[in-house]
Amino acid sequence: MSAAGEAPPRGFPTAEFEARLERAQRLMAAAGLDALFLTTEPEIRWFTGFLTLFWQSPTRPWFLVVPRAGKPVAVVPEIGAPVMARTWIEDIRAWPAPQPEDDGLSLLAGVFREIGAAGGRIGLPMGPETTLRMPLADFERLRAALPEAAFLDATPAIRALRRVKSEREIAKTAHICRIASEGFAALPGLVGAGMPLTEVFRAFRLELIRRGADDVPYLVGAAAPGGYDDVISPPSERPLASGDLLMMDTGATFDGYFCDFDRNVAIGRADAAAARAYDTLWRATEAGLAAARPGQSCAGLFRAMQAVIEADGYRAGNVGRMGHGLGLQLTEHPSNAAWDGTVLEPGMVLTLEPGLAFAPGRGQVHEENLVVRADGAELLSRRAPRELPVI
Amino acid sequence: MSAAGEAPPRGFPTAEFEARLERAQRLMAAAGLDALFLTTEPEIRWFTGFLTLFWQSPTRPWFLVVPRAGKPVAVVPEIGAPVMARTWIEDIRAWPAPQPEDDGLSLLAGVFREIGAAGGRIGLPMGPETTLRMPLADFERLRAALPEAAFLDATPAIRALRRVKSEREIAKTAHICRIASEGFAALPGLVGAGMPLTEVFRAFRLELIRRGADDVPYLVGAAAPGGYDDVISPPSERPLASGDLLMMDTGATFDGYFCDFDRNVAIGRADAAAARAYDTLWRATEAGLAAARPGQSCAGLFRAMQAVIEADGYRAGNVGRMGHGLGLQLTEHPSNAAWDGTVLEPGMVLTLEPGLAFAPGRGQVHEENLVVRADGAELLSRRAPRELPVI
Repeated sequence: MSAAGEAPPRGFPTAEFEARLERAQRLMAAAGLDALFLTTEPEIRWFTGFLTLFWQSPTRPWFLVVPRAGKPVAVVPEIGAPVMARTWIEDIRAWPAPQPEDDGLSLLAGVFREIGAAGGRIGLPMGPETTLRMPLADFERLRAALPEAAFLDATPAIRALRRVKSEREIAKTAHICRIASEGFAALPGLVGAGMPLTEVFRAFRLELIRRGADDVPYLVGAAAPGGYDDVISPPSERPLASGDLLMMDTGATFDGYFCDFDRNVAIGRADAAAARAYDTLWRATEAGLAAARPGQSCAGLFRAMQAVIEADGYRAGNVGRMGHGLGLQLTEHPSNAAWDGTVLEPGMVLTLEPGLAFAPGRGQVHEENLVVRADGAELLSRRAPRELPVI
Repeated sequence: MSAAGEAPPRGFPTAEFEARLERAQRLMAAAGLDALFLTTEPEIRWFTGFLTLFWQSPTRPWFLVVPRAGKPVAVVPEIGAPVMARTWIEDIRAWPAPQPEDDGLSLLAGVFREIGAAGGRIGLPMGPETTLRMPLADFERLRAALPEAAFLDATPAIRALRRVKSEREIAKTAHICRIASEGFAALPGLVGAGMPLTEVFRAFRLELIRRGADDVPYLVGAAAPGGYDDVISPPSERPLASGDLLMMDTGATFDGYFCDFDRNVAIGRADAAAARAYDTLWRATEAGLAAARPGQSCAGLFRAMQAVIEADGYRAGNVGRMGHGLGLQLTEHPSNAAWDGTVLEPGMVLTLEPGLAFAPGRGQVHEENLVVRADGAELLSRRAPRELPVI
């Protein structure tokens, strides 16, 4: 119903979760894991469809146990049991959390015993980009309650599962990318010189929600004469001024799936150095789009973009990489970085995010979103204008 | 400039951070801690003022080390160094994260050595409502790099520091509470029977942002004939129908500070059972407000509300507590629960959140926000109407 066209249906059919579980249990068997132990929002949502903003509250832990055979078991606070009961999960154990003396630990240990994992190998995400979302002291208590169990890093399996998206997942990301693309296209009518950056952000956030975004959990940016060095700030009260380069970067969501891209616009007039940097980054992105084919590596993508930037005499920005995976989270594995040899496969959703610094404290970042198809990159964001727009 | 009156200034003066640090170092000395080790957004923001939505990205860890004397040291990804440099923190060590083979660990270990904590007692939050926001495998590597250090739970110290708010903090919460109160007052003009719940939520989110909320990270609720059992869901596409009880619960933010309260309204007509439950919960909240004085305990607050609910023949809801602390996070220590003996002090900001179930799958929850003053509770939310409103 939004301006961005018919929204895809919310949620997923049970068959999709069954297929995810089957893939997971194949990888678990290959890794010799008796169970997966999950505590974080994206992992629990990927396996169950459990979607709530209640994760904002740090008070209560949430647990999902994926056995080597059979359906996942949820161990959740009572406040969330009705929502979990609407997912495809059947075995739900609940307690009246918060209950600090035993916040789900006895229930959880009982599940590991029942599924025969108490003396086995329990995998959980321990590697890069992961956290354990439960109190560290409670994790130690759980380990003490299961002294025979080995807790092992399951990051490689979780990454392999999540990095290739289903067509239903891609449709959700594509929808929020269309909404954000139309929001950016509307920007010239929303902002102008003299408007404080806080109000620029407010106007853009409203525009995205009006156009069908469920939420805008991520909206950062900067405006500074000719270029910026800080790409993650909330807005200041400073009014936009002629000569500013304005960058806004948004991670809006539809049904729990993110877009993540930015746009650069010059206010009043385009600074020559900013326009040159824009041209370089636009062509760096083109090189990334051309390189984003199955069989290419993330490191190769990085090098393709870096080559354009360095051929123009710039040094690449120091944000550590030039794009990343995208989906249930604003940023996901893999990284378009020299150290990431992950090979592209059809169904991977990625951002391309080349950046450069052209003077001390002055830089620029571009970003687009794409899905890897058998024959190359399919853009999900509407391609940024060829030349630095002036508004 | 918003409808809710002049907004308080953004940020805090350096003197406020100096006072926070002084309190922290007194508590550290009492607990025999040589350093605090912090990885999470609210703790790092409380000590530094570092405010960014970039925490949405799970990719990069962020570290703050508070020594037993002298200013905190930030160990942060280069992408965030310019923002951190705008805070009062002077010693900032940055690396080009993500860099999985050494994601800040060498820098971090070096800081602990420099401040003389490598063989000492390092406190970090390990208790209820806390997480360690870094990969578990990296934490194990840090421990291995500092084999002489003892890593201890600093949850009691962190709680004591954060639970009493400064007047500047209270002003920010008060401002977002005013905005949300006015948003709820405008609700009858925004929604009505026939409107899908997704659109009800969209209209209310837009209203809050238009009125001056920076963001609405939390907006949940329910609408069902006469009452609801699920209080944490995103909205369904189901249209509001006459006889529904609609509950919306919002955690909107201003300058990084949350409100957290809800409102109940009947659509078209008030169900008699819903109106009776509303009356009970309104009086339970009154009892909580009367009890919220310095010297009272959180358990006492809980009992005051529970007594009203049980005297009316209901059983209390099973969300584990009836309110909690509020501030940098949607929910904070302490809990208004039978097991929480925390004693109220002036400057504590709390929610009162009595709930009850009056039939299987049908319940109701009320919520207000207050600050404890020397002479009792000062409401921050505008008090809910005395009787169940019908729109």
